[in-house]
Amino acid sequence: MAQLIADRRDIEFVLHEQLQLDYLSKYEEFEEFDKKTINLILSEARNLAIKEMLPTLKVSDEEGCRLEKGEVKVPECFHKVYKLFREGEWIAMYDDPEWGGQGMPMTLSLAVNSYFYGANFPFMMAIILVHGAAKLIEHYGTDAQKNLFLEKMYSGQWGGSMLLTESEAGSDVGALTTKAVKNDDGTYSITGNKIFISSGDSDLTENIIHPVLARIEGAPEGTAGISLFIVPKIWVNEDGTLGEPNDIVCTGLEEKMGLHGSPTCSMALGSKGMCKGVLLGQENKGMRAMFVMMNEARLDVGLQGLGCASTSFMNALNYAKERVQGKPLLASAKDAPAVPIIQHPDVKRMLLTMKSYTEGMRSLLYFIAFCEDRIHLSNDADEKSMYQGYIDLLIPVAKGYVTDRAFEMCAHGVQIYGGYGYTKEYLQEQLLRDSKITQIYEGTNGIQAMDLLGRKLHLGKGEVFKGLISKIKEIIETAKAHKVLNDLSQEMQKTILKLEKTIGHIGAMSRSDKALTAFAHAYSFLDVTGDVVMAWMLLWRANIAVEKLENGTKRKDTDFYTGQIRSAQFFINSVLPVSRGKMDVILSSDDAAIQISENSFGGL
Amino acid sequence: MAQLIADRRDIEFVLHEQLQLDYLSKYEEFEEFDKKTINLILSEARNLAIKEMLPTLKVSDEEGCRLEKGEVKVPECFHKVYKLFREGEWIAMYDDPEWGGQGMPMTLSLAVNSYFYGANFPFMMAIILVHGAAKLIEHYGTDAQKNLFLEKMYSGQWGGSMLLTESEAGSDVGALTTKAVKNDDGTYSITGNKIFISSGDSDLTENIIHPVLARIEGAPEGTAGISLFIVPKIWVNEDGTLGEPNDIVCTGLEEKMGLHGSPTCSMALGSKGMCKGVLLGQENKGMRAMFVMMNEARLDVGLQGLGCASTSFMNALNYAKERVQGKPLLASAKDAPAVPIIQHPDVKRMLLTMKSYTEGMRSLLYFIAFCEDRIHLSNDADEKSMYQGYIDLLIPVAKGYVTDRAFEMCAHGVQIYGGYGYTKEYLQEQLLRDSKITQIYEGTNGIQAMDLLGRKLHLGKGEVFKGLISKIKEIIETAKAHKVLNDLSQEMQKTILKLEKTIGHIGAMSRSDKALTAFAHAYSFLDVTGDVVMAWMLLWRANIAVEKLENGTKRKDTDFYTGQIRSAQFFINSVLPVSRGKMDVILSSDDAAIQISENSFGGL
Repeated sequence: MAQLIADRRDIEFVLHEQLQLDYLSKYEEFEEFDKKTINLILSEARNLAIKEMLPTLKVSDEEGCRLEKGEVKVPECFHKVYKLFREGEWIAMYDDPEWGGQGMPMTLSLAVNSYFYGANFPFMMAIILVHGAAKLIEHYGTDAQKNLFLEKMYSGQWGGSMLLTESEAGSDVGALTTKAVKNDDGTYSITGNKIFISSGDSDLTENIIHPVLARIEGAPEGTAGISLFIVPKIWVNEDGTLGEPNDIVCTGLEEKMGLHGSPTCSMALGSKGMCKGVLLGQENKGMRAMFVMMNEARLDVGLQGLGCASTSFMNALNYAKERVQGKPLLASAKDAPAVPIIQHPDVKRMLLTMKSYTEGMRSLLYFIAFCEDRIHLSNDADEKSMYQGYIDLLIPVAKGYVTDRAFEMCAHGVQIYGGYGYTKEYLQEQLLRDSKITQIYEGTNGIQAMDLLGRKLHLGKGEVFKGLISKIKEIIETAKAHKVLNDLSQEMQKTILKLEKTIGHIGAMSRSDKALTAFAHAYSFLDVTGDVVMAWMLLWRANIAVEKLENGTKRKDTDFYTGQIRSAQFFINSVLPVSRGKMDVILSSDDAAIQISENSFGGL
Repeated sequence: MAQLIADRRDIEFVLHEQLQLDYLSKYEEFEEFDKKTINLILSEARNLAIKEMLPTLKVSDEEGCRLEKGEVKVPECFHKVYKLFREGEWIAMYDDPEWGGQGMPMTLSLAVNSYFYGANFPFMMAIILVHGAAKLIEHYGTDAQKNLFLEKMYSGQWGGSMLLTESEAGSDVGALTTKAVKNDDGTYSITGNKIFISSGDSDLTENIIHPVLARIEGAPEGTAGISLFIVPKIWVNEDGTLGEPNDIVCTGLEEKMGLHGSPTCSMALGSKGMCKGVLLGQENKGMRAMFVMMNEARLDVGLQGLGCASTSFMNALNYAKERVQGKPLLASAKDAPAVPIIQHPDVKRMLLTMKSYTEGMRSLLYFIAFCEDRIHLSNDADEKSMYQGYIDLLIPVAKGYVTDRAFEMCAHGVQIYGGYGYTKEYLQEQLLRDSKITQIYEGTNGIQAMDLLGRKLHLGKGEVFKGLISKIKEIIETAKAHKVLNDLSQEMQKTILKLEKTIGHIGAMSRSDKALTAFAHAYSFLDVTGDVVMAWMLLWRANIAVEKLENGTKRKDTDFYTGQIRSAQFFINSVLPVSRGKMDVILSSDDAAIQISENSFGGL
């Protein structure tokens, strides 16, 4: 069977050759994760992904979720996969073994999850939600709370969700109205309605632990008055046994464009006045807790995008090699027989587009996780803050830019299949539908752009961004030294100088009386930053490839490394000139989008 | 009720102010179509679209089509709409009254259809298919055939389809294997299997007339041996009465990403050896007939894209005015209440993107139809050939570029709704799904790009393209004379000079030994041509707006005309610099996509 989720060689390339992950195994904490162990874990994950998860992807899309007598049923085929997930202990890969985690480097867990997301993103929603809910408790819970919940959540015995959004509080979380009133016993009575709650209910587990954002009676308005609560579906007694069902129920399921295997619930809390929760962390500090979790959550969403794009690419590549249609283009080949469509220039262009983006996105996301690992291991404050800086800057790219491009790659994946791509006979159309949500949730991509321009750009008075630029320039310098990459390094050099100019321009504008105009260009700014980051990752890869080729490699590796140089060549020569055009747009400070009046939009 | 399909003011602007359609009413043939009549027809169409068609859009998506006992059932709600269509005589608007057509200018019929496509594109598939099938008979049929079929098809008493694609003959039509054997009575026995046949069967009509592409026994291989046949679902006797059912049946329906209201059929012809058809036109000239129909069919697909984009825009605009979420961005407004999201810069950017593309696409498509009308009325060979040149060049833009951008606009439409956009509660996600097919069928957009570069660019040794460039330059000259448009005209001037250089470069390369590299850039070339064409249309609009404003207008018109200038400003300043970046890419002749070997793509 062709490998249709992710290119194993490429995953190993990033882990071992680009990031040199086994460097981490020099630290006691990660000493068991040498190269051999890493590859064994990858193989296990790959097997599970290919043999058990991928076959349920389409089935679950067709079956969807049902709400029956107040209980949510997920697709039947998910139950077996969930059991295997629990048995294989795949839920809490990089978490503290003290609480039931596997203690892996986060980078490795990301690599594993890129297989899982590519194989079955809707299923994975249940996994990341229980993981995220538990992580919140690990960060902010009392020892008693950790003892009560963590192991059962990290092992998957209990599920988790995250109750944040309300119908009038979406992007504007501070507008939420769910209310918490303190009871005499220290618990809180909670009343409110939440929407768009992924895995808000499910029949995969005997219990579900819901972190809930609510406002304690009398607390300030806005984000400053939001607290976080643990609200179990079934009450958990102090000895860990299950008590009475809590007054929190799923009142409806969204019908969605995709992600049908994952229930998106409307939740009613306290409709009988009996919903009980306990405070998690400090009063009114709920939003701060959210912010701490945000980087991981957004990185995860980027990984969902990459998963869809990678599977779409692998399928398209396989199809293009097998599908025979049309004669070769050259006139000299007029009487030649029809050829596999991979030989047609426009199909090759689409495939190389998919390849280069998939590779660049993979490197970026793994790199961010690698930074997290370095912070985790480091005792040096400067080093920690350097890596934290990279992360802070790259998160909006990882979430916003990556999911935008992932959706586009899935669209290419449909296109390469032609009419077949539009049918449900193949996965491509589902990947396109599923991936769409990644641009929307966990902060719309417009909000990611605002985050980059409004907050991240100004971190450390701009010094953090300068640090990232310097790091990129190191790779350019290395490329300059390789004759075959010299032209690419020049092109990249030109682009990064223009990016610096663009940063200066839009950064100043965003703090001037033209701030609105600056923010009308925020999206473009995220775009061009992302383009440069992709090019950085691909040039970095090409540097390694050139060095390996110089030292002599086996045939199969030669193909792979040559392919790395082609990806960089294609991206730098075909995307960066367009990116510089986008920088010109930002530099022009055009204000049409701000100046146009509401009435001039028409539509009456 | 808010107007949620298309901006009436904008449609009238294009018809009356930009194209000055009532100029055509000076000709006897169109004398009844003065401005007042045109507006009356538009109002009728708008009413039908809003009151009857739009309400069935979502219902039909959910209900879909069924194959029951060999018969296809379309969504129940389509029957009433179809009846109204027949009563209103909306099927054959611009066709010859001699055969039951309404004899309208094609431009007007396009404007009407842009309402209909925006209201219910899946329903419209049945309409355009019977119209296209009848048009083929009108062009190539004998008088007896015309008498037998046309009036019943143009009136909608009978349906139509088009049997072209086979599983191994998609983009490569010449590979088809359906066979025709001549019988003693002059009819042909036809045997074969077709797939992806829109409206291949339906319960809307008592009979369906199928044009079928097949190869007569002994005919040459490839496209040179393809003939066209009329194969009725139920045989039509010489006196027009219905005879026996023919041996052509629907054997399956595709499950698709969207367009659920339109049945996509697998068709078996002659599985009992009893399928009978009559030759339409000459033997072995079937592909030529297809080519003649192609421009109209591709223009129609562009209009489908525009329909989806326009409805998505109108909905998004309406939503953005009503949805209150988040405070104003400016720090000075920190304590201000939450505002409708149309006030947020990034939302305005998306809305203005949608507005300017929708307007540009509308002008382009109507303009092409207007060229058809001018050809139709003209007796001057030079004039005819000038308009035909515009059409030939602009058709790949109208089909390829417009549907690409339409899909993107629908994606913006989803994004503006946030999480709600992903749910089936609103139309946005359906419009995105439905619009996807327009990039694929009627020649994938990759094929449109090849058509532009491989054939159209070289028409008249490049003189045809030069003619179009000259026409665009006229608009730039006019803009130069308007002070407020001077900067935009400069920007446009710079871009068109670069386009000329790009044309020279890629045109020469496409006929050199680097042809494969040229074709790897064909898609970008279609993109930049499309960008310039959009900018031309928008600058043309802005010229008119400036003139109207100079002469003084009412408040509402002032808003509209100012909006026209903003669209041009936004597009020219925000899209054209990016477009010039794409031209740089073409000019660089990067060959990564050609040089990369199949093995270097990886995926093993």
